[in-house]
Amino acid sequence: MERRQFLKGAAVGGVAAASGLAAPAIAQGNVTWRMVTTWPKNFPGLGVGAQRLADRITAASGGRLTVQVFAAGELVPPLQALDAVIDGTAEMSHGAAYYWQNKSQGLSFFTGVPYGMTSRELAAWIRYMGGQELWDEIYDQFGVQGFLSGDTGTQAGGWFRNEITGLSDLQGLRFRTPGLGGRVWEALGATVTNMAGGEIFPALQAGTLDAAEFVGPYNDLALGFYQICKNYYFPSFNEPGLATELVVDKAKYQELPSDLQAIVRDCSQAEYDQVASDFYANDPRALQTLVNEHGVTVRYFPEEILQAGAEAAKEIMQELLDSSDPLTQRVTQSYVEALRIVRTRTEQNDARFIAAREAYFDI
Amino acid sequence: MERRQFLKGAAVGGVAAASGLAAPAIAQGNVTWRMVTTWPKNFPGLGVGAQRLADRITAASGGRLTVQVFAAGELVPPLQALDAVIDGTAEMSHGAAYYWQNKSQGLSFFTGVPYGMTSRELAAWIRYMGGQELWDEIYDQFGVQGFLSGDTGTQAGGWFRNEITGLSDLQGLRFRTPGLGGRVWEALGATVTNMAGGEIFPALQAGTLDAAEFVGPYNDLALGFYQICKNYYFPSFNEPGLATELVVDKAKYQELPSDLQAIVRDCSQAEYDQVASDFYANDPRALQTLVNEHGVTVRYFPEEILQAGAEAAKEIMQELLDSSDPLTQRVTQSYVEALRIVRTRTEQNDARFIAAREAYFDI
Repeated sequence: MERRQFLKGAAVGGVAAASGLAAPAIAQGNVTWRMVTTWPKNFPGLGVGAQRLADRITAASGGRLTVQVFAAGELVPPLQALDAVIDGTAEMSHGAAYYWQNKSQGLSFFTGVPYGMTSRELAAWIRYMGGQELWDEIYDQFGVQGFLSGDTGTQAGGWFRNEITGLSDLQGLRFRTPGLGGRVWEALGATVTNMAGGEIFPALQAGTLDAAEFVGPYNDLALGFYQICKNYYFPSFNEPGLATELVVDKAKYQELPSDLQAIVRDCSQAEYDQVASDFYANDPRALQTLVNEHGVTVRYFPEEILQAGAEAAKEIMQELLDSSDPLTQRVTQSYVEALRIVRTRTEQNDARFIAAREAYFDI
Repeated sequence: MERRQFLKGAAVGGVAAASGLAAPAIAQGNVTWRMVTTWPKNFPGLGVGAQRLADRITAASGGRLTVQVFAAGELVPPLQALDAVIDGTAEMSHGAAYYWQNKSQGLSFFTGVPYGMTSRELAAWIRYMGGQELWDEIYDQFGVQGFLSGDTGTQAGGWFRNEITGLSDLQGLRFRTPGLGGRVWEALGATVTNMAGGEIFPALQAGTLDAAEFVGPYNDLALGFYQICKNYYFPSFNEPGLATELVVDKAKYQELPSDLQAIVRDCSQAEYDQVASDFYANDPRALQTLVNEHGVTVRYFPEEILQAGAEAAKEIMQELLDSSDPLTQRVTQSYVEALRIVRTRTEQNDARFIAAREAYFDI
């Protein structure tokens, strides 16, 4: 594209090229980048956010960097999105870093871990407490660069056919939940399976699954779990946040003029806020619909489950601190140290305000 | 600037102008905009955020829109920042909408109100629940446009010489706190005064003030209140968040090419996240310093104060719902309706996760 535009400009006005006007014409030549995503087309919150991020970059660059989005499976299967950037099939991917744990265990921290950071805390670690630098160190090994690009906020705990009164109700319960959260539920006694979002409803319907967690009301409403399970449990102690990432081919990114590099960075960060705003507005609206129109009951996990979950999460954290991979060890250390600091603000200030408002400010 | 660049280009390459290359040259001419702010130079979090926002816009636009920052008093006094944009002295201002309550009472909601929304909730209202549209309606009367550009998160409750055991300790207490929060404290029995940040320390030292609230640890540490008061109370039920705004001259903004308009919007939104991240990382660090190095004791308001504060805040909200100004009434209605929805997510999901983490996840 760049080359062709340059040639066209030169052909029309040879003097312009000679006078140096062609140089900005090259620098401002339009390029099109492909963004592969791990999300189904129009997936609420996250897939919509990937498309909006692409549109923002295209608009803010005046089309000089036009981003074309491919939903999961359109160019590559969802779980090959990162590899597609690494092998040059695409210039960008939009997904979640914890999908690539097989490349480095430390990547979990850039999405979210059981009993870990909220979205505000995660951004504080990434932007001010060394998180981004460690993330860069991991991704440098693959020639890519990651940016935070969205967050769901604290997710829902899951859909259950029956009320859960304690740990005894979880023994052998066939529960769908992926990743490190799955390991926590295994420790609680559940029989954990993972499956794609679209497979959950049929499995619940067929009775091969007793319970499932996916995201939260905004996404879960669309998948119809309420037709089978009426008990919707909160909170997800496994996913106190789920951050999405924009990944770019680092060499191609660094070849961009610095204004386009800035646009990619700034638009990703704007989307980190936009996606969270979408969930904060639309999760509670969807929950109202679930309760008022579909007979769903909102319930809270009994304390012994919250406590046992925390114990299991601590064991996982300790395992990562003891990792044989030095980089995973350093990432975990940095995360734990940052969490010890940022949680004091959240737990002692924010939480106390929210509790007081809940108790006394009935309007 | 634009005109001169165009002429220079035309003089060097007449053919270029004739061939149409001059048109983009005009569209891409550099302009410089002045941003006046309500913050002292290098004021942690907020003043630094104003400068960083200006630098982001300059960088993302490749200098086509260069933003020059004036700290409080450098071009106009802090509380004339909005008027400076209205009268054309500056193209942008960075401050807090509630400073302009004299123009419209509804503007308080775009910064924060006692017992109101957290920063995540506010962004949800602004971006997805009609908040921006109402804000635009207010500012359209003055020919300006507002964007969220930062947030402090939940602030600290204040500095007190003595421990506060209940409402009786507040009677006649000379307390520095501005705005609607000041009205809440008056209702609690305090004698409320307002004064600029720099005047607080001398007043505490001279004994003409018994107590004061300003922002939170990050800002308060720098002002040295700990030298006089050792009791630092949390949370601020009056300022569950303080959102900053970027205000632009609407006509000039709409004359910008659409890519520059997008850059201003996207950079402001990126800063909404960046400023909050700064506070979430640096408030707890500053609080550690206050406690470990300056002998400060962290305390929490007694329940009867939290409750009485909520009653006073409800009365203020009712007053605004009953406002004789129809627009203030509509803004208040929209805010209250949105709060009723978004609080369910924060109070029933986020808060329960944070409580469980505090109780069980000791690492």
